[in-house]
Amino acid sequence: MSTQSERIGRLRAAMNDGDLDALLVSGSASVRWLTGYGGSNGLALVTQSRAVLFTDFRYADSVEPLRQELDVEVVDQNLVGAITPRLAQLAGGAVGFESNQLTHAAWSLLGASGAELRPTSMLLENLRAVKSPAEVELLRRASHASDQIYARIADAGLAGRTERAVAHQIGDWCRELGDDASFSAVVAAAENGGRPHAVARDVEIPRGTLVVIDLGVRIDGYHGDCTRTFATGSTEAEHKEVYEVVLSAQQAAKGLIRAGAGCADVHEAAKRVIGDAGYGEFFKHGTGHGVGVEIHEEPRFRDGLGGTLQVGNAVTVEPGIYLPGRFGVRIEDLVVVDADGYETLTGFPTSLLDVG
Amino acid sequence: MSTQSERIGRLRAAMNDGDLDALLVSGSASVRWLTGYGGSNGLALVTQSRAVLFTDFRYADSVEPLRQELDVEVVDQNLVGAITPRLAQLAGGAVGFESNQLTHAAWSLLGASGAELRPTSMLLENLRAVKSPAEVELLRRASHASDQIYARIADAGLAGRTERAVAHQIGDWCRELGDDASFSAVVAAAENGGRPHAVARDVEIPRGTLVVIDLGVRIDGYHGDCTRTFATGSTEAEHKEVYEVVLSAQQAAKGLIRAGAGCADVHEAAKRVIGDAGYGEFFKHGTGHGVGVEIHEEPRFRDGLGGTLQVGNAVTVEPGIYLPGRFGVRIEDLVVVDADGYETLTGFPTSLLDVG
Repeated sequence: MSTQSERIGRLRAAMNDGDLDALLVSGSASVRWLTGYGGSNGLALVTQSRAVLFTDFRYADSVEPLRQELDVEVVDQNLVGAITPRLAQLAGGAVGFESNQLTHAAWSLLGASGAELRPTSMLLENLRAVKSPAEVELLRRASHASDQIYARIADAGLAGRTERAVAHQIGDWCRELGDDASFSAVVAAAENGGRPHAVARDVEIPRGTLVVIDLGVRIDGYHGDCTRTFATGSTEAEHKEVYEVVLSAQQAAKGLIRAGAGCADVHEAAKRVIGDAGYGEFFKHGTGHGVGVEIHEEPRFRDGLGGTLQVGNAVTVEPGIYLPGRFGVRIEDLVVVDADGYETLTGFPTSLLDVG
Repeated sequence: MSTQSERIGRLRAAMNDGDLDALLVSGSASVRWLTGYGGSNGLALVTQSRAVLFTDFRYADSVEPLRQELDVEVVDQNLVGAITPRLAQLAGGAVGFESNQLTHAAWSLLGASGAELRPTSMLLENLRAVKSPAEVELLRRASHASDQIYARIADAGLAGRTERAVAHQIGDWCRELGDDASFSAVVAAAENGGRPHAVARDVEIPRGTLVVIDLGVRIDGYHGDCTRTFATGSTEAEHKEVYEVVLSAQQAAKGLIRAGAGCADVHEAAKRVIGDAGYGEFFKHGTGHGVGVEIHEEPRFRDGLGGTLQVGNAVTVEPGIYLPGRFGVRIEDLVVVDADGYETLTGFPTSLLDVG
């Protein structure tokens, strides 16, 4: 079965479970995942008997190959306006829509359709969270590309170059080894690393400190995400101590990953190690998130969120400690849950490397 | 007066006109424009007496400088959930929200606030459409950078290189001359140029054809947007004929640009020239769009849209003809409406250059 018909089939089963006759898919990442349409203006309507992609004339040409898998209709650029008069007839019953992927304005427009509209939540996101072997292979390739970049960084060294210059170089390497960078690389030395969400500065990286580097390579629409923290020349004892705490937290969290594990338990494991070491107040973000056609997707390891892991989940494990005004450490791997536990896709060493 | 307080002042006047006691700004480009906040999770609430930016702990550090201009509150990552219980009290009356910038899910959440919620449309977008002299200067710099890139393209030639290699090179130049590319450059030779929304291919650019190149450089958050069509060696008479039609259409449209001109009239002028030459069915997109902190913003020259131009509007003029399976031509300038008519920000020649 083709990728698209397999995904549409999985969606139909989920629609059945939710008593929906039709589902309007409006989130662009989900439209791309479901239909293969990669443009900027697409909307999909799926019923048990049909799957229709709506787009506008600008894409008339590029959507031709998609017709092998689904119906394609080229309509006015205001897609929601164009389908509203026909929605009730096309859907033939209760129409689900993606409540967190449709604007209030578009929903108001759809109200004129006369169709029975039902908000849905996380339907597509939960399907996308379970990766096929082909999707895992793309994530593996993206992760392998980031391993190569970390090896080049280690070879080139960091001290004496500006954070921004290193970040630019990483961007170039992402485009050489993949299609593009998944996001602007974080390169954060010394006190900048003490920010949980640092931005690379026009500031020279000094000797004798730690540098947090977070980067990802995008390949065929799938993202990579990996963080390493490097030392530049001899470091203080506290640098090494904090590094070991974060590494232990990461290993404790990874140790719990397997199908059926509670997402909250994975997060708690990382928090416990960091808290027990006395750094609890300096780790406030989640322990990880899913990665796929979006850089942040389901499942999530975060305060207040439950759920259990399934085979096929691809998720980061990335605890960190951020000491304001001083330095920070984050270590992030991308792992995929399999029948035996998990596979780590990112392969660059996690021990503290002094790259000078 | 500072940039932010001037913008907040303009918004308050617009809120007064709309009988709103408060406005919740959720569109990320508008939040950035209004508050200066450049992160990924911000929400602004503006009343006649207060302007508050809400964000989460990841940005606690980077938002400190913004406190000179407005109040900043660091709350839970689910910003809408965090402010809902306090919204009625903070707003003190009717609260406008951006109907096309708020999801149905977020709007549903806000419903629990007990506040009187009023959908608004295009309020921030219309303010952003009128650029200050400082904003025009950034657009001028971005346009000047694209001029330099076109000069380099003309020097280097096109025939014999792949579309994708040229597009990659353009991306590198965008990052050298500005902060980044505004979008992935379009490089579309021969029949690929016949697509109104072409994507660069791994295909060698042949001699004796036309190549459509669309690129933009982003500087300090402001975008550039410029298209030129080049010849590669001697071209057929029809190439030159179509080029001249598009150039005449562009000149006709530009000729109408001044404060008070109807946007529909500008669009009709371009359509008329192309239609009179017999190519009407091959020009289906709009004649132009505003450019600023978003690459596509108000005002728009497009079928079915009215409105009049004002001093400070920065807008593209970009008619095109796309002959399916054969070739295409598009010529795009960025112009800004001023007291004397308009200024063209993009300075690279619009005559047909044969770059080989």
